[in-house]
Amino acid sequence: MTRRLPISRGIRKQLPKTSQAQASPGSGGYVGEKREAPVKLQFFHYDEQQYTEKELASLDEINSFSVKQGISWLNVTGVHDELIIQQIGKIFSIHPLVLEDVANTTQRAKVEEYDDYLFVVLKMATIDQETKTVILEQVSLIVGPHYVISLQEQEGDVLDSLRNRIRLAKGRVRKMGSDYLLYGIVDSVVDNYFSVLENIGTSIEEQEDWLLNSPNQELLDNIYSLKRELVFLRKAIWPMREVANTLQHSDHSNIKKGTSLFFRDVYDHTIQVVEAVETFRDMMTGMLDLYLSTVSNKMNEVMKVLTIFAAIFIPLTFVAGVYGMNFEFMPELKWKFGYAFWWIVVILLAGGMLIYFKRKKWL
Amino acid sequence: MTRRLPISRGIRKQLPKTSQAQASPGSGGYVGEKREAPVKLQFFHYDEQQYTEKELASLDEINSFSVKQGISWLNVTGVHDELIIQQIGKIFSIHPLVLEDVANTTQRAKVEEYDDYLFVVLKMATIDQETKTVILEQVSLIVGPHYVISLQEQEGDVLDSLRNRIRLAKGRVRKMGSDYLLYGIVDSVVDNYFSVLENIGTSIEEQEDWLLNSPNQELLDNIYSLKRELVFLRKAIWPMREVANTLQHSDHSNIKKGTSLFFRDVYDHTIQVVEAVETFRDMMTGMLDLYLSTVSNKMNEVMKVLTIFAAIFIPLTFVAGVYGMNFEFMPELKWKFGYAFWWIVVILLAGGMLIYFKRKKWL
Amino acid sequence: MTRRLPISRGIRKQLPKTSQAQASPGSGGYVGEKREAPVKLQFFHYDEQQYTEKELASLDEINSFSVKQGISWLNVTGVHDELIIQQIGKIFSIHPLVLEDVANTTQRAKVEEYDDYLFVVLKMATIDQETKTVILEQVSLIVGPHYVISLQEQEGDVLDSLRNRIRLAKGRVRKMGSDYLLYGIVDSVVDNYFSVLENIGTSIEEQEDWLLNSPNQELLDNIYSLKRELVFLRKAIWPMREVANTLQHSDHSNIKKGTSLFFRDVYDHTIQVVEAVETFRDMMTGMLDLYLSTVSNKMNEVMKVLTIFAAIFIPLTFVAGVYGMNFEFMPELKWKFGYAFWWIVVILLAGGMLIYFKRKKWL
Amino acid sequence: MTRRLPISRGIRKQLPKTSQAQASPGSGGYVGEKREAPVKLQFFHYDEQQYTEKELASLDEINSFSVKQGISWLNVTGVHDELIIQQIGKIFSIHPLVLEDVANTTQRAKVEEYDDYLFVVLKMATIDQETKTVILEQVSLIVGPHYVISLQEQEGDVLDSLRNRIRLAKGRVRKMGSDYLLYGIVDSVVDNYFSVLENIGTSIEEQEDWLLNSPNQELLDNIYSLKRELVFLRKAIWPMREVANTLQHSDHSNIKKGTSLFFRDVYDHTIQVVEAVETFRDMMTGMLDLYLSTVSNKMNEVMKVLTIFAAIFIPLTFVAGVYGMNFEFMPELKWKFGYAFWWIVVILLAGGMLIYFKRKKWL
Amino acid sequence: MTRRLPISRGIRKQLPKTSQAQASPGSGGYVGEKREAPVKLQFFHYDEQQYTEKELASLDEINSFSVKQGISWLNVTGVHDELIIQQIGKIFSIHPLVLEDVANTTQRAKVEEYDDYLFVVLKMATIDQETKTVILEQVSLIVGPHYVISLQEQEGDVLDSLRNRIRLAKGRVRKMGSDYLLYGIVDSVVDNYFSVLENIGTSIEEQEDWLLNSPNQELLDNIYSLKRELVFLRKAIWPMREVANTLQHSDHSNIKKGTSLFFRDVYDHTIQVVEAVETFRDMMTGMLDLYLSTVSNKMNEVMKVLTIFAAIFIPLTFVAGVYGMNFEFMPELKWKFGYAFWWIVVILLAGGMLIYFKRKKWL
Repeated sequence: MTRRLPISRGIRKQLPKTSQAQASPGSGGYVGEKREAPVKLQFFHYDEQQYTEKELASLDEINSFSVKQGISWLNVTGVHDELIIQQIGKIFSIHPLVLEDVANTTQRAKVEEYDDYLFVVLKMATIDQETKTVILEQVSLIVGPHYVISLQEQEGDVLDSLRNRIRLAKGRVRKMGSDYLLYGIVDSVVDNYFSVLENIGTSIEEQEDWLLNSPNQELLDNIYSLKRELVFLRKAIWPMREVANTLQHSDHSNIKKGTSLFFRDVYDHTIQVVEAVETFRDMMTGMLDLYLSTVSNKMNEVMKVLTIFAAIFIPLTFVAGVYGMNFEFMPELKWKFGYAFWWIVVILLAGGMLIYFKRKKWL
Repeated sequence: MTRRLPISRGIRKQLPKTSQAQASPGSGGYVGEKREAPVKLQFFHYDEQQYTEKELASLDEINSFSVKQGISWLNVTGVHDELIIQQIGKIFSIHPLVLEDVANTTQRAKVEEYDDYLFVVLKMATIDQETKTVILEQVSLIVGPHYVISLQEQEGDVLDSLRNRIRLAKGRVRKMGSDYLLYGIVDSVVDNYFSVLENIGTSIEEQEDWLLNSPNQELLDNIYSLKRELVFLRKAIWPMREVANTLQHSDHSNIKKGTSLFFRDVYDHTIQVVEAVETFRDMMTGMLDLYLSTVSNKMNEVMKVLTIFAAIFIPLTFVAGVYGMNFEFMPELKWKFGYAFWWIVVILLAGGMLIYFKRKKWL
Repeated sequence: MTRRLPISRGIRKQLPKTSQAQASPGSGGYVGEKREAPVKLQFFHYDEQQYTEKELASLDEINSFSVKQGISWLNVTGVHDELIIQQIGKIFSIHPLVLEDVANTTQRAKVEEYDDYLFVVLKMATIDQETKTVILEQVSLIVGPHYVISLQEQEGDVLDSLRNRIRLAKGRVRKMGSDYLLYGIVDSVVDNYFSVLENIGTSIEEQEDWLLNSPNQELLDNIYSLKRELVFLRKAIWPMREVANTLQHSDHSNIKKGTSLFFRDVYDHTIQVVEAVETFRDMMTGMLDLYLSTVSNKMNEVMKVLTIFAAIFIPLTFVAGVYGMNFEFMPELKWKFGYAFWWIVVILLAGGMLIYFKRKKWL
Repeated sequence: MTRRLPISRGIRKQLPKTSQAQASPGSGGYVGEKREAPVKLQFFHYDEQQYTEKELASLDEINSFSVKQGISWLNVTGVHDELIIQQIGKIFSIHPLVLEDVANTTQRAKVEEYDDYLFVVLKMATIDQETKTVILEQVSLIVGPHYVISLQEQEGDVLDSLRNRIRLAKGRVRKMGSDYLLYGIVDSVVDNYFSVLENIGTSIEEQEDWLLNSPNQELLDNIYSLKRELVFLRKAIWPMREVANTLQHSDHSNIKKGTSLFFRDVYDHTIQVVEAVETFRDMMTGMLDLYLSTVSNKMNEVMKVLTIFAAIFIPLTFVAGVYGMNFEFMPELKWKFGYAFWWIVVILLAGGMLIYFKRKKWL
Repeated sequence: MTRRLPISRGIRKQLPKTSQAQASPGSGGYVGEKREAPVKLQFFHYDEQQYTEKELASLDEINSFSVKQGISWLNVTGVHDELIIQQIGKIFSIHPLVLEDVANTTQRAKVEEYDDYLFVVLKMATIDQETKTVILEQVSLIVGPHYVISLQEQEGDVLDSLRNRIRLAKGRVRKMGSDYLLYGIVDSVVDNYFSVLENIGTSIEEQEDWLLNSPNQELLDNIYSLKRELVFLRKAIWPMREVANTLQHSDHSNIKKGTSLFFRDVYDHTIQVVEAVETFRDMMTGMLDLYLSTVSNKMNEVMKVLTIFAAIFIPLTFVAGVYGMNFEFMPELKWKFGYAFWWIVVILLAGGMLIYFKRKKWL
């Protein structure tokens, strides 16, 4: 059977490709897994009173909405179509380096402040229900004074609850500006880490039970792949902390004073995620150490059994061998009670060994 | 027998649940273990001269007290009743994010300064006397100019000594403001860590004796669960240090100048707790290393015994086997002193082996 | 067969030689591998409209170009000819310490600001296609208001794409100043790390498959040399991060305001490289641990097999030996069913052992 | 024989007791080992010209000295008599929190600045000559403009050399103020660490010799207890560094400008102690690793001996067993040179095995 | 044979002796290895035009030189003669704490700024050509406006190249002030670390070859002593970095603006040394891990050989033993092809075992 660590595919995905790295700056195309699905453009326009939702066929339709009143939210699913990204760049006058970063899905989470808009890159973690592995996806946000453009790699349900809150005018979201929408998206992404952590936590507990009852090689492989997933999760969440912190203290004109409290809340959540990941890593390390100590203990036990058997029976076999010899002159063989006497010697020998091992606490 | 690490239940409790994480911000209900007990409202009102203590049936009774004079302390036991928390929010005009944090018992310890009040989250550690494991509980404090609201998950006796000091007007507490009451609560919570550490310290010493005399698998499991408890304790106490430090240097209007000296004292205590936890972790790591080295040493000893027995008796058995063969022409068998001579050879062989092992310092 | 870690040659190269270290400061000659190839001088002169490219026979030809208009780029391949370096120093009035650093190829990456020019040292990583090992090379840059001098140890194709962009007037490079050319070179060098990392990533994945299927000593050697390559790569890229950061925040007159955005992009890339190297190191450490745990597991299995065989057959051999003895009086030998009975005893003994090992979960 | 790590007693001593932790702040009594000895009050009064030394029967005698002229040094040996500490508090008007800290001997080293005086807590390390273990003791200092009160747990000779310098007017001490006396005490305490380190250093060298010649379990226990002593020593000295640094940069009115140079010297010494402790820890870790590697090497050697013996003689024993069988038709047994031929086969077999092991470099 | 780690002598030397630590501050005599050689006083006096060099018999001769013009360099070899140090203190009016530090050769490298002069302590590393171990020596420098006093423990050739440059007026040294002479000395001392590192690098490579071809206990000892030498080297170079940095940014009147560039160069070199030491430590750790993994691998191989031999021949020996029994009624013994049949069984058994081990990949 060929063993396989489930995460290796994920590793390859997190590194920029050479092809892209060599390109002229500001002109890089899509970098990431090959995707064929057509790009989906979902458009929301709302203010406190009214609300419109539309799936756009092309970006040109966007002009029929005033982007000066209310809040516009353009959600783009799929960043592999360079034309659409260039078109967005033209409509909203976005810097070419930003467009390059949107298409390159190997970025770290970050915030960049431009004169008219904020550019935010997030890393979203979800669990692939089939393979039970963690998937990291990039979500880019461009936040203008009256609009938010969110670009994600593939469809997902992480933002559904936020969309519903807009549709049903639940909570504050309809009453507030684009910065609160930004907060809503960042908050959804960060909170989704908790459900990923819950999954991993359950997995850790299963393996702990396994470890305590019947540890084997497969468990070892599992612990290592879980540990590796945590390495990637940690690498993803760490810069998210900086993002939340930057947004909390930002004095960009698009971030209103009152929203800062909410970003502090998000910041607290990222710290909780970081700490949970660290705790999980500590626990995995502890489990591995326990596994290795247990193996070491068992080996010791095996060795003791071997030694006891060998040390008792090898000398006895020698003693039996002595009287199996065919020397012509062996007086003991002629004695009447030779055989009985031999047994006594053998039993005394074996008993002595047992007492010796008892004293050494091997029994 | 199914082995079980005692702490695993605690782990699951420290992570926010997905259900809550997905909710609209500022609207999150209770997060934590399911509890059925009715919420208990204990109300103190005191100044230097007089003192009233009352168990409230409902929060409405609170209005019969003037919260402008003297100090009011409302102690809420049980944070799973959302209605009561909402009502407190309305009476004292508390921000919804604070109310959310009160109900979510998976917070880190922290201080948040609002215009009219301070919001302090503490982690309280106690020892469950039955299972001998550490229990972490969240205590939230809302500190206004003339009132303190403390909210804890379940009843406990950590604050009893403080309550008695108020009742008996012992110490400074009756003469001072809400900030000193805050100090009293924080100090009680921090000092309770010392009794938890004492418990763990005793446990470590027991296991050390065990380690030096008869180490086995159960000890190994114990060391690992103790180590894990320390991980959780450390995670709880670390942000408490920041809390004490923030309070010490706070210039919030509710914290008077003179109280800062007392918070410095609390800060010193949190540092002592942190250092003790670190020292315990170092000691546990040392014990584990000693355990593994001891096992390794023992394995070496077992191997030596095995090797000595095998190396002495296997050749002898071969020599005995030689003269047990039935070849027709074996001249030695006919010699008169063949048998005696054989014994001499065997004894010389065995003696040579013993000298060889002596030289190798295996004996 | 003599085993050999492939990287050792590289280590020796990264340390300054004693001979040089002892020399008078500011007078140090070439330090590095001995090279015989003649120094190559490649000269570009361009502005937005026109473009000249020339291979110079001697540095004197440079005077025929006005270095006050447009941008001049002198690319020197080979830094082992002290005369040429001194001549450059004279023509562009460069400080002697800079000239010493150019010739000493064991520098760390750094930026030094002088009144008229910036001095930048970069470390370039490439993969030697034959030996599949990482080669680190030093690239020194002197950046004046209208010129850039780049000095590299040997010819390579890392800058080819940049040269083509100048030739074809692709991208911004022809429209901008010497600071943008500096950016172009730094960006090319940093982006080349990604292709090196991709190579190493592939290598790691190969070894991971190897590890899971048939681990052996050669794999162990490979993992260790890869780990060591990462140590050197990390040592090279770490100061590059500082370089990018310094350039991003530099207020030197040769760096225009608008270029800072581009250096921020480079800085992001260096951080990605640093993180990838760290992640690779974590992965290698994990692989090593997995290797060792697997070996430990296998040893345990081997021990069990040995113990089972020994513990079953050694007692049986003894029992057989008993009835091979030649005592005259051994009643069992005369019994009619003695032999059959003996077999029954032997089979019961062996069966008992098997049940015992089954209970211990060794089977 | 019951093994015992010598340091464990020390651990228990370094933790505050629960009883104290629960008490009302500022009212805590003595915390530490139970002591019965009467408190000793040693009083010095000196200026450049004259000098008085007296053992006080009670603190009331102190009033006969003017504490405004010259320098008064009150040295209190024994902090378990609460009455005396309260009395000192009244005479010199000391803050209750300071008095609490004096009596609680589990403090970290620290400096606290009050309006009229400095409060300094030091940790003094001495070697118990009987048990050869490190003893940590708390020395508290209250430094007023013209007086120093030093409080220590038990009598010792660390300050004797300082006392002699006062008596004999050697050095600067009689010419300078209370800050220089403070310096003298801190310097004596810090310098005493060097003699403790010298002791430990000797112990390490002894164990190193032991390790290289005949490592055994007792050595392992010793290394672990030494390592643990270093953990405690490090915990004690680390905050001493901060103390020296704070005193060096203090602008408290009781510390004169010129004394700062001397505190810088003390600071240098604390750093040397910290570095020595770190170096010792590195050395202990190295010794442990060497020990474990040596054990591992020896186990390997033992295994080889076992394997060589077993692999050579077990097949030979089988060959001998073959011709010990009693089959009626065994042609070899009748051959004339059967027996001689058998020996040839046996010797070839054994020789082949030896060559095989030689090739594997096991011999 | 008694094994011995070569470095242990060096350890003892790096700790201050108790005797000194107890002395009155500012009065400490020589601390270090006992030396008998007379102190050598070498005196240089130079300016751009002229140059005098003289070996002084006593310090009184120094007055015949004007120390106000040109640069005076007094090089004192041997710091164990207290009288000479006191005399220097008087002539140049040096603070007593400086004189104490000069005589105490266990200092860390440091810079202390006094009003009229700078006091610099350096640690010089050289290789003892006989024992091939690293020797650390203290060099103290007192740098006045027109003079430099350098004090070293024993004669060495590290500064010879600098002296020659003065004699031959090579480089800048004769044209510049005492700060450049200071630079010259610091630079020589730092650059000498490179030759020490080169030596260690060669040693590492030798041991690496050894490791890959025939690892044994002696190699293990060597790796550990090398690792320990690196600990001491690191401890020595680390504060040198701070020294170079402090000198680079010093605004002391004795350090001219233009010299700062040169100290930056020295600072770069110290960083290179620090990094090389760290890299060497990483390499040593890697080698140790490789060593241990190799031993572990070999043990596994030995175990397999043992198990294969035992598992094949122990059952066969039993089968041979069965037919060596002397039961009267054993039908197989009478069969005509009993013996031949027996061989078939034996060969099948052995073959089966071989196939089993092949499947388990042990062969």
